[in-house]
Amino acid sequence: MAHIQLAEEFYMANEALKSFTPTSASIPPPGVNYRLRLPSGTPVHLHALNPLAFVLRSAQIYSNKLAIVHPDVRHPVIYSYAVWAQRIQNFAYGLLEAGIQPGDRIAFIAPNMSAYHGVLGARAIICAINTRLTHGEVAYILEHSGAKLIFVDHESAHLVKGAKAPVIVVNDTGKEDDPYEQFLTSGRKFSNERGWAGLEWERNEDAGCALNYTYVAPPHQTGRERFVVDVVIGSYLAAVANAYDTGMNRDSTYLWILPMFHASGWTFPWAVTFASAAQICLRSVSYPHIWNHLINSGVTHYCGAPTVQIGLINAPMARRLEKPVFAIIAGSAPTAHLIGELEKRNIKPVHVYGLTCTYGPSTVCYYQPDWTSRALDERARLLARQGHAFATAEEVRVVFPLKEGESLDAPLVDVPKDGQTMGEIVFRGNIVMKEYFKDPEATRKAFRGGYFNSGDLAVWHPDGYIAIMDRSKDIIISGGELSTHPDVLEVSVVARSHPKWGERPMAFVILHPQKAEKWAGRHSEFEKDLKEHARKRLPGFACPEWVSIVPELPVSIIVLEEVVRVVT
Amino acid sequence: MAHIQLAEEFYMANEALKSFTPTSASIPPPGVNYRLRLPSGTPVHLHALNPLAFVLRSAQIYSNKLAIVHPDVRHPVIYSYAVWAQRIQNFAYGLLEAGIQPGDRIAFIAPNMSAYHGVLGARAIICAINTRLTHGEVAYILEHSGAKLIFVDHESAHLVKGAKAPVIVVNDTGKEDDPYEQFLTSGRKFSNERGWAGLEWERNEDAGCALNYTYVAPPHQTGRERFVVDVVIGSYLAAVANAYDTGMNRDSTYLWILPMFHASGWTFPWAVTFASAAQICLRSVSYPHIWNHLINSGVTHYCGAPTVQIGLINAPMARRLEKPVFAIIAGSAPTAHLIGELEKRNIKPVHVYGLTCTYGPSTVCYYQPDWTSRALDERARLLARQGHAFATAEEVRVVFPLKEGESLDAPLVDVPKDGQTMGEIVFRGNIVMKEYFKDPEATRKAFRGGYFNSGDLAVWHPDGYIAIMDRSKDIIISGGELSTHPDVLEVSVVARSHPKWGERPMAFVILHPQKAEKWAGRHSEFEKDLKEHARKRLPGFACPEWVSIVPELPVSIIVLEEVVRVVT
Repeated sequence: MAHIQLAEEFYMANEALKSFTPTSASIPPPGVNYRLRLPSGTPVHLHALNPLAFVLRSAQIYSNKLAIVHPDVRHPVIYSYAVWAQRIQNFAYGLLEAGIQPGDRIAFIAPNMSAYHGVLGARAIICAINTRLTHGEVAYILEHSGAKLIFVDHESAHLVKGAKAPVIVVNDTGKEDDPYEQFLTSGRKFSNERGWAGLEWERNEDAGCALNYTYVAPPHQTGRERFVVDVVIGSYLAAVANAYDTGMNRDSTYLWILPMFHASGWTFPWAVTFASAAQICLRSVSYPHIWNHLINSGVTHYCGAPTVQIGLINAPMARRLEKPVFAIIAGSAPTAHLIGELEKRNIKPVHVYGLTCTYGPSTVCYYQPDWTSRALDERARLLARQGHAFATAEEVRVVFPLKEGESLDAPLVDVPKDGQTMGEIVFRGNIVMKEYFKDPEATRKAFRGGYFNSGDLAVWHPDGYIAIMDRSKDIIISGGELSTHPDVLEVSVVARSHPKWGERPMAFVILHPQKAEKWAGRHSEFEKDLKEHARKRLPGFACPEWVSIVPELPVSIIVLEEVVRVVT
Repeated sequence: MAHIQLAEEFYMANEALKSFTPTSASIPPPGVNYRLRLPSGTPVHLHALNPLAFVLRSAQIYSNKLAIVHPDVRHPVIYSYAVWAQRIQNFAYGLLEAGIQPGDRIAFIAPNMSAYHGVLGARAIICAINTRLTHGEVAYILEHSGAKLIFVDHESAHLVKGAKAPVIVVNDTGKEDDPYEQFLTSGRKFSNERGWAGLEWERNEDAGCALNYTYVAPPHQTGRERFVVDVVIGSYLAAVANAYDTGMNRDSTYLWILPMFHASGWTFPWAVTFASAAQICLRSVSYPHIWNHLINSGVTHYCGAPTVQIGLINAPMARRLEKPVFAIIAGSAPTAHLIGELEKRNIKPVHVYGLTCTYGPSTVCYYQPDWTSRALDERARLLARQGHAFATAEEVRVVFPLKEGESLDAPLVDVPKDGQTMGEIVFRGNIVMKEYFKDPEATRKAFRGGYFNSGDLAVWHPDGYIAIMDRSKDIIISGGELSTHPDVLEVSVVARSHPKWGERPMAFVILHPQKAEKWAGRHSEFEKDLKEHARKRLPGFACPEWVSIVPELPVSIIVLEEVVRVVT
């Protein structure tokens, strides 16, 4: 294969990568062009926005540049933009070959996937499913979404047993005999070398492209899961803002710490390609691998769930990085301690906020020019706020919540910008989901007053920054370590007032389903066990004072929303 | 007024700025919000893209940050984002008060203007007119555009004498008694403090927002000027790409060297506000002022017509800058000499290409990661190419030109990517004009094959870079100095083959209309005069070997297109 620019560090350190050869179906034909067929009647001066454009453009300009690499696995793979684009095209043709029609849902249960681009080529909809769900939950999603085709990572294959739709296993090898590669190879054959021109550009910017499973919080809680429909123009604009606001460009390297299946990976699968940046995949949150890449692979950006950060700064390999790395943090406000520790390692926190219903992050706590000179505590207090709508979003507001008996059509009223009056955060515009899938009634309620009502309670500060009140408490993020306890499925740690220390950590834990019985009626013993687990791994101040098992909390909750949901 | 952040350098150096107070009508009311009225039926999740959003968002997040300053005039002015946004709102209300309807054209003949934002508030269309045109040409544009209202800088007032539409003179003072300020103050009163909510958001992304006068080159030449209609979504997306691709952000300061009336200022009036950056206005290309700002005002970006660069590097104040400045250069390729000289001064050239019909620049010669290590000459050769479509544009192509007798609907055929076969550059997508105003026939011809046909001849290189053949010659840019000759109106200098030196500069000159008679029949004497003028100001190699007076070249030609047009 052609030499991939800028990937020397991988070649050096990794013999398997050095000798890796993409399947022959992954190699683009000579004279490839990147133009899809346009629907007839497309005006010369209007082109439906679609994030598929990003990877096409990157493949054109930076064909030999590193697009994506998956190094820390038994069979590492590495693809240039030109090769990766060809694989995306093959995937799209594979879908067509399988009879997929525009608007059909494609399920993906895997830590990583390039399907975020591939589905756009076939005008299908990706339904990425959390690999940590149970078989029953996955079955529910497959049923509800009506997925026509299922791709599943070999480690998650048990989750789709008995599924009605055809299943394709991804062995994550990149080798010709991998069933996933056979799907791509077959797609390439099916294309009959028509190339991109054999696929049609989506004319409707409002067409769905991702279906994301979420948990809906009060006041819209009905006790069941919802599917969030994201559309192509929203995905395009959210990705542009994520790239722009985090300063990603062609010199950037993005490390996948955030699972790619969380709310379309916060649109970063597309944001990274808008920037023509490189991306490094992981199969799980492994601190040695993460630090190896931070130190040796030129990583410039990562998104981090709050539970990841403490583990990251406490890892044995942790050190000060030569060049700054931007950590996009959502889910809870970074504390002064955390900011200080990250800064010591030359990691710069970017505090963002959003929900699955807003394509992941859609606000940024923008740094004001005069904050840099402030003391750490003061900066942390300012940075803890959720901030303002990001570059392509409309203004985020804090409004008085729905009153008893009030019409859903009543105009929303802003709370005063006094930093004190509590209200509900609402969003509107292109970075808001289209609807809950097959649930017009829930959609109608969520869209009270012409805005998406987040259910998050917040104040509006005089400087225009919004701040979630629950989150504005210093939340101690030690969940990353707690989640390594073998019986823990999900965990969130929040600050709770303490008579002596002011505040101490409290952990909310969801047990692994198969372990729930083991601890039934013995919650205090589990608490003891978890605290012991914590003491071995965390400084005393970060160990939980209290532990609460919350079996009723849906395990599918996305990390973005995790802390607030648990606290309410 | 509130202290403006980051503007210390201006306050320090400029007493008049220090004491400047905006008119009382410029001060936003307490509790201002930035939401326009939405047309009924606007979906929650779709919001028509409109660059007005940029200044609203900047005013919200960075209300006290420097938005715009005009320092080097008798009455300097400086506005924060909050104050500037209020002035933009006042302008919109002023238009409504004057009876302006959506789609009406507003003429502006001035070196600087915030009308690019203000018209969007009233859903009107700005028609910015080159201040260097003659009275007759201005009259033609006013007539053809049907401008309902005319704003004219006090120095250009003679150009609109006898105009039918009402004229408002801009004295460029920022003081209460300035007729322009009276217009804004009256607009504020007319608003009755309804604020932004009293204005309606443009529902139609395809509505016109700018009308730009251009000269149409062969093969579409008909000997008359054309008006290019730009729409709101195109302006939005072009501005986003210009900000993203040049790395502008809230820490940036943009210096207006490019006239703001050239092809909507290449959309930089909006791009700068997308970035929440600061902008510094000039009334004319004055090297001492430019260098003062490069050295003392934190300038990070400017757009430069080719004729400006040589003057810039040869100015007495020229020196190496502490921090890098990005020079966005269009109109001709930067030569190795120029790149070298700019780099010595820590100015980094970004070579862009486009036409008035493509919102100004819409391609960038993207730097490949491995170019940095190449020798200057090699880099210059690579950088001289026009490159690839920019971040929000669709692929730019080089196709075989229209054949004799061929249908305009015939599909376009790419030239081979061999770096040799000449073809015509064509564009399509959101960064292409909507149409020629009131000229469907010319539009139809320009849109042959579903693409905008540029008339520029180019080759397509194997690496996907397009390169204009005329421009790929090393064009010696000494026009900046030649244009200081008192009898010269416009000048372009190109390379022409020379028996001894390989290539030598040739100057094409348009004389000032009032000087044409003076030199009538004495062109060789003028040539001698101009060469002498050049020798006093330029190194020998940059002095023109030949001088040609070209009275038939429209003086309104935009700098972007200047060189190529003259060469054809």
